[in-house]
Amino acid sequence: MHPDRIRLPRLRDKVMSAEEAATLIHDGMTVGMSGFTRAGDCKAVPFALAERAKTHPLQITLMTGASLGHDADKVLSDAGVTARRMPFQVDASLRKRINAGEVMFMDQHLSETVEMLRNRQLKPVDMAVIEATCITADGGIVPTTSVGNSASFAILAQKVIVEINLSMPLELEGLHDIYIPTYRPTRQPIPLVSVDQRIGTPAIPIDPEKIAAIVFTNRPDSPSTVLPPDLETAAIADHLNDFLMREVKANRLSAALQPLQAGIGTIANAVLHGLLDSPFQDLRMYSEVLQDSSIDLLDSGRMTFASASSMTLSAGCYERVMANLARYKSRLVLRPQEISNHPEVVRRLGLITINTALECDLYGNVNSTHVNGTHMMNGIGGSGDFARNAHMSIFVTKSLAKGGDISSIVPMVTHVDHTEHDVDVLVTEHGLADLRGLAPRERARVVIDQCVSPLYRDALKDYFKEACRRGGHTPHVLEEAFAWHTRFRETGSMLSRDMMLAD
Amino acid sequence: MHPDRIRLPRLRDKVMSAEEAATLIHDGMTVGMSGFTRAGDCKAVPFALAERAKTHPLQITLMTGASLGHDADKVLSDAGVTARRMPFQVDASLRKRINAGEVMFMDQHLSETVEMLRNRQLKPVDMAVIEATCITADGGIVPTTSVGNSASFAILAQKVIVEINLSMPLELEGLHDIYIPTYRPTRQPIPLVSVDQRIGTPAIPIDPEKIAAIVFTNRPDSPSTVLPPDLETAAIADHLNDFLMREVKANRLSAALQPLQAGIGTIANAVLHGLLDSPFQDLRMYSEVLQDSSIDLLDSGRMTFASASSMTLSAGCYERVMANLARYKSRLVLRPQEISNHPEVVRRLGLITINTALECDLYGNVNSTHVNGTHMMNGIGGSGDFARNAHMSIFVTKSLAKGGDISSIVPMVTHVDHTEHDVDVLVTEHGLADLRGLAPRERARVVIDQCVSPLYRDALKDYFKEACRRGGHTPHVLEEAFAWHTRFRETGSMLSRDMMLAD
Ligand SMILES: CC(C)(COP(=O)(O)OP(=O)(O)OC[C@H]1O[C@@H](n2cnc3c(N)ncnc32)[C@H](O)[C@@H]1OP(=O)(O)O)[C@@H](O)C(=O)NCCC(=O)NCCS
Ligand SMILES: CC(C)(COP(=O)(O)OP(=O)(O)OC[C@H]1O[C@@H](n2cnc3c(N)ncnc32)[C@H](O)[C@@H]1OP(=O)(O)O)[C@@H](O)C(=O)NCCC(=O)NCCS
Repeated sequence: MHPDRIRLPRLRDKVMSAEEAATLIHDGMTVGMSGFTRAGDCKAVPFALAERAKTHPLQITLMTGASLGHDADKVLSDAGVTARRMPFQVDASLRKRINAGEVMFMDQHLSETVEMLRNRQLKPVDMAVIEATCITADGGIVPTTSVGNSASFAILAQKVIVEINLSMPLELEGLHDIYIPTYRPTRQPIPLVSVDQRIGTPAIPIDPEKIAAIVFTNRPDSPSTVLPPDLETAAIADHLNDFLMREVKANRLSAALQPLQAGIGTIANAVLHGLLDSPFQDLRMYSEVLQDSSIDLLDSGRMTFASASSMTLSAGCYERVMANLARYKSRLVLRPQEISNHPEVVRRLGLITINTALECDLYGNVNSTHVNGTHMMNGIGGSGDFARNAHMSIFVTKSLAKGGDISSIVPMVTHVDHTEHDVDVLVTEHGLADLRGLAPRERARVVIDQCVSPLYRDALKDYFKEACRRGGHTPHVLEEAFAWHTRFRETGSMLSRDMMLAD
Repeated sequence: MHPDRIRLPRLRDKVMSAEEAATLIHDGMTVGMSGFTRAGDCKAVPFALAERAKTHPLQITLMTGASLGHDADKVLSDAGVTARRMPFQVDASLRKRINAGEVMFMDQHLSETVEMLRNRQLKPVDMAVIEATCITADGGIVPTTSVGNSASFAILAQKVIVEINLSMPLELEGLHDIYIPTYRPTRQPIPLVSVDQRIGTPAIPIDPEKIAAIVFTNRPDSPSTVLPPDLETAAIADHLNDFLMREVKANRLSAALQPLQAGIGTIANAVLHGLLDSPFQDLRMYSEVLQDSSIDLLDSGRMTFASASSMTLSAGCYERVMANLARYKSRLVLRPQEISNHPEVVRRLGLITINTALECDLYGNVNSTHVNGTHMMNGIGGSGDFARNAHMSIFVTKSLAKGGDISSIVPMVTHVDHTEHDVDVLVTEHGLADLRGLAPRERARVVIDQCVSPLYRDALKDYFKEACRRGGHTPHVLEEAFAWHTRFRETGSMLSRDMMLAD
């Protein structure tokens, strides 16, 4: 009965099968599940719930930290269980239902979900389902490879189902730092002043009476799906390294830079990898997710400490970290996403943030979420929490997508996640645009010179010229602003015959 | 020689005329001037500088807190002095030059200007020109009716010109609370945990040796230009009051609500006026500017304390406050705009923020700055600092502008200042859309039902229907998204013949 995993004896008779536990979840409930960027998600109850829905249809509002692994979002939405979903997802099948208007998706700044719950501005959580390493002697829940929103879900929920994952080493205990802001109007400052500081408790403190079920599982996290760096992402990394070196030379940054945040995905991972061969020293990370690149930086000694809300690693890297937790634990901490992403802390620490754009426009407005302005890719995630409050907000993107049929630098973005105010630097494989202190017309010239693909450069110049003829602080030709996008929709390419001939 | 106004004797020989002081400002300099929403601006040096430029042409980068009074922005830009301007302005003449691309304007979140200066991400301030009530015995500068960015400008500048305004009562001393965040990487939490707390000093502490000139003036601030409430703004206030009462009934707010922030302009002022006849008690304000409405709320006893960065009042209200400072001082404080607008403090205190949209779209994205997507009105001001970090972010607008030729509710906004994530509630004279916890398609239905003018309702419904046919999380018809705006540009009205016939 794993007394080391359930240290409060009276909880041991809460152990049951996933199928039994799933019966505690009823139609119409709001369910808060652990899981953040595929890490620390529940491995059994979601699937038992989907199975049960085949014979007992039910619908829930599903909240998580961020994305789930093991196709849980696919399985739950295919089973018709997910009626509403927040605050983030990355699943192809769920994405299809969201874009068809079948699942109501609330795309949220990741620091804000539990703030709204706490203020009773969202429907309360009926049931939390939390993956744990173990339950402590006083009933505290020790998370696994992510904290995400698990702490607040468990604290605010009526009842809690705990999934104890036996594949998670007990050495994970002590990795987490659970701090929850106090209630308003008596909220105190968050006392965090350096990335390596611990300000909370190692376990999620809840009333053990709320634990309604305990389920044992034994499956590792889904491995990360990021692709290795390629020529273009390596070029992006090089431009960024050169720029940061110039900042150090100009005495605007020290060789330790400022604490780094890097977004999810292939490009951000590649950019961090680029730091391995950089002259920077004693780097620190204050991010929401650690990818392989962060672990490699720690291993190389170039990074001294990393704080995040989850670890999403490839299979090999995952094994290496799990087998050597004692070694990593002094240089890693996992926090609630409300703290890893908190505006207060991000602004205080002064992060250099690196996030990915789907598309960016002439003036530096960024779309990170909506393909062609309408179809949700993943969600804004934490990018808004970080970019808005950064010391320096960097966005990266390849200049082209879909083999050149899409330019990621467009006249006007079809959806805005990050306004020009929140975008200091833009990097593509062609170059880097330092937009700090520039007015919109100046920004446009730098973006055209540095970032756009040569395939689209002349067309973008022409657009800007005509826009300036019309005038304005931020010149545009409204009836042409989305012409590239509508051409893509109609012909499968943003390139017009003219552009192709010109090239 | 006003020893009560210059209490450090050795500074008394720095007194000179505005004309002399203006010669200290040279071509190419970055000049940081006091002044925030027409309050506490310099009354002499800017005009002497413009005069001098007639014979000795020169160009500067002009930074302020926010807008200036006394047509200073007109005079300086007409004289060709203003080459670059940040972070906010409201002047018709300067606006024309900005929109013609003649003056480079950096529209910034108001909490961020001095953060970027401090981090050396903007060109350093050569000269600060600061209006003061007096200079203390240790050389500290006591501001007048605004703090704005004056403290950081004076601290960071090479040299400082002080304008002592004799029309400002000495009782202003003690009204201000100057707190500047410490440098990274050792920055500490901002210790402010309630709106009435004082955490700094009453004067701006600088090395008196930096004071290069002292000029005496004797002109009051320009009076506020806001219009009195009308039928529509009163209807907006009523909808908002009803909504807040329902929130109190539902136990989501206490009768003291949360600290209030209200933006500049006629509508926000009217909305605050509406609170005079409300059942709320012990209201507090944590805002960037106090308008007449805030003073009326204090006078009525309905508000107990107000914190801001400036006071911008009508002539009558201004006189009343100046004549009774002793009475108001215990219930008012003026802070640096970095603190009044700081994400850390805004999020901690949990503000209810009320800001004004120029236009808002189906999904709740807000444009507060760009007429027809291109022409700058004023700037984003503090609205982004507040809306992003609010407990509840409310945007207000009349449903129509220009006599009905413009609908302020449009299919897609032509410029985004505030994304849907940062807009919880939208109010027009027709009704209130509570968007919390809703997915985009749900938001659209509420906005159509509650907010759009009947003149445009059917057309907006038709747009949304066609958009949904096309699909997506946030449905749009890209080639039609700006059709109303291009029609306005071509015909002078967003209304088509069909819409007019339908009505
Ligand atoms: C923007 C985002 C999707 C990019 O992901 P990535 O893996 O780094 O980038 P890729 O270039 O591989 O692009 C991913 C996909 O988007 C497509 N894409 C890229 N630019 C595009 C554009 N302008 N229009 C349409 N599709 C585009 C790519 O073709 C690719 O499609 P595929 O999966 O079918 O091959 C991802 O970073 C994201 O979801 N960001 C938002 C959340 C966030 O930033 N969180 C940060 C804090 S965690
Ligand atoms: C948006 C803003 C301009 C509204 O100001 P206001 O005085 O409350 O509102 P009004 O309805 O009187 O509108 C002001 C002008 O905009 C025009 N306007 C309003 N909606 C419009 C629209 N959708 N398209 C074009 N013009 C519009 C009005 O007709 C009016 O024009 P006029 O001056 O020629 O009469 C003002 O609040 C602002 O600049 N906000 C941005 C900064 C901010 O929010 N700061 C808040 C923290 S201080």
